[in-house]
Amino acid sequence: MSELRQDPATKRWVIIASERARRPHQFVATANRAPVPEYDPSCPFCPGNEGKTPPEVYAVRSDGSADSPGWSVRVVPNRFAALSPDTPLEIRRPDICTSIGGYGAHEVIIEAPQHNLTLATMPRAHVEQVVAATLHRLTTLGRNRSFAYVAKFRNHGAAAGTSLVHPHSQIIATPIVPAEVRNEIEEARRFYDDRVHCVYCTIIAEEMEEGRRVVLEAPEYIVITPFASRFPFELMIIPREHASSFLMGHHQSTSWIAEALHRTVRLLYLAANNPDYNLVIHTTPLRDTCEDYYHWHVEVLPRLTTPAGFELGTGMYITTAVPEETAEYLRDFVPKVDEDP
Amino acid sequence: MSELRQDPATKRWVIIASERARRPHQFVATANRAPVPEYDPSCPFCPGNEGKTPPEVYAVRSDGSADSPGWSVRVVPNRFAALSPDTPLEIRRPDICTSIGGYGAHEVIIEAPQHNLTLATMPRAHVEQVVAATLHRLTTLGRNRSFAYVAKFRNHGAAAGTSLVHPHSQIIATPIVPAEVRNEIEEARRFYDDRVHCVYCTIIAEEMEEGRRVVLEAPEYIVITPFASRFPFELMIIPREHASSFLMGHHQSTSWIAEALHRTVRLLYLAANNPDYNLVIHTTPLRDTCEDYYHWHVEVLPRLTTPAGFELGTGMYITTAVPEETAEYLRDFVPKVDEDP
Repeated sequence: MSELRQDPATKRWVIIASERARRPHQFVATANRAPVPEYDPSCPFCPGNEGKTPPEVYAVRSDGSADSPGWSVRVVPNRFAALSPDTPLEIRRPDICTSIGGYGAHEVIIEAPQHNLTLATMPRAHVEQVVAATLHRLTTLGRNRSFAYVAKFRNHGAAAGTSLVHPHSQIIATPIVPAEVRNEIEEARRFYDDRVHCVYCTIIAEEMEEGRRVVLEAPEYIVITPFASRFPFELMIIPREHASSFLMGHHQSTSWIAEALHRTVRLLYLAANNPDYNLVIHTTPLRDTCEDYYHWHVEVLPRLTTPAGFELGTGMYITTAVPEETAEYLRDFVPKVDEDP
Repeated sequence: MSELRQDPATKRWVIIASERARRPHQFVATANRAPVPEYDPSCPFCPGNEGKTPPEVYAVRSDGSADSPGWSVRVVPNRFAALSPDTPLEIRRPDICTSIGGYGAHEVIIEAPQHNLTLATMPRAHVEQVVAATLHRLTTLGRNRSFAYVAKFRNHGAAAGTSLVHPHSQIIATPIVPAEVRNEIEEARRFYDDRVHCVYCTIIAEEMEEGRRVVLEAPEYIVITPFASRFPFELMIIPREHASSFLMGHHQSTSWIAEALHRTVRLLYLAANNPDYNLVIHTTPLRDTCEDYYHWHVEVLPRLTTPAGFELGTGMYITTAVPEETAEYLRDFVPKVDEDP
């Protein structure tokens, strides 16, 4: 029997279509990825090609001067930036169509010198450096009073919208709060107004009690297959401590954040054969901290299926994967995630 | 210079990234489609295979009895239905996670007997039959007081989420109003509360005055490249007469609706080389007719680019296509759209 489910946090509905339901292993990525060399002389992110990117704004270096080899993590403005801090912040409202000059920031975190590493296959100690770079850049950009939101995301594979193989993630700072972020926060606020409790804290408590969708747990976080998952193998990392912002109170916490990210993407890598995915940090807007009612978290969205007209037109997803079955399948792979790659 | 633009109706922001901007012709689909035969004996939608689908609920027939050849348009329940009217409408709320048994309807409109036709290559008179079938089924399903929304959509090509080549579209009736529909209506209501005028009527007036994004115009509708387009070659059909529902007052209007649909998909077919696309009818919920402030319309969303983590996490799209340039490019193809295929 099919089932409609509503996400308690966003109020988005999904349809879990049992008539076409498939078992978790049937969603595993089957495409063979072409072998990738450790170094690609034509890749702008490989060491030696530092001149092919704009000058670095952050780097972890054991050696060398800025914009030369010797780094282990490197952050640069995107060469084809969608938004730039050099564009004037000019708001135009000639009629009902509001537009703003492309003021903002768009940076790339080059996560490792090795062309063929991924977040799942790099050592955990290295993921800590990536998390530290992320926290540093988000904090720095967050100080700009003209920015309203800073998004951090990672696109892995062609189906997830990237053509560059070299391990990297991106940061975009915008002068406005995007509509979906606004909706998510609005729903969290409504929940808090009704119950005087954070909806994500409530989800943690109920998921821990229910147990069937919990994939990983640790003192600092849990990882679940969300009740109203939109995608097969969708995962959510929720920090146990209530904090609205990824940046708040976590400056000394690169260690557990790196552990949570690494274990989650490794689980996906091992159990679903290195699928294409998007990873997005959901955090509070910069000038409206939503302290009591919002709760930062991470969404990992594998791209093993293609959203169609129904999804694009209604925001409602049809999925043929059952979250409880996916969680059960994934738990078998947990013992392997902590073996260092 | 890049630009942020806000859609006046939905309040969604997009980034038009000029650093990577491409001219309209650079987005034209380049993949060669495999030649498709007029008849495929293995296709469940081809004549002679009527027994491979559930029994028809509607058909335009010149000949034959139900579930046999002789039809020109045929509507059947989806064999792998996401929702079904046979499932009890049972609402479960054991905690904060609401779910409903998969009550609803999921139907397929088989648009033509010919396996290799598409909406763009069939004669306009035939598109009228498809529109009549759509209106008939939506009206019939809309009489069910347990349905809250009826979505009609069309997925063309693999990138748009379909694997079946045979020309078809789909209808899904849901017992709830999807979140994105709710948001769109909520924003339309706010606009009306502020201005005592429908936002879509305002868009029509401003687009006609501005002119640069108008692609097609007729006494009954206009077709534009939306100011805040998310996709290259995105198109919107807006009826000039204010009506909140696709179903209201249009029972005698299959003629102009068919003309608007046919010209729009033909324009895309001719100018962008038959790209994959989703087509969605946006109409009012069934039990909340939003008469004054909502306005039905059609969105055509070509899938020539892949939304990535930023899009999935924020609902904000980065596009490298400039709507005004796309409209100018498309207008060159307008003289050809009315030559019958």
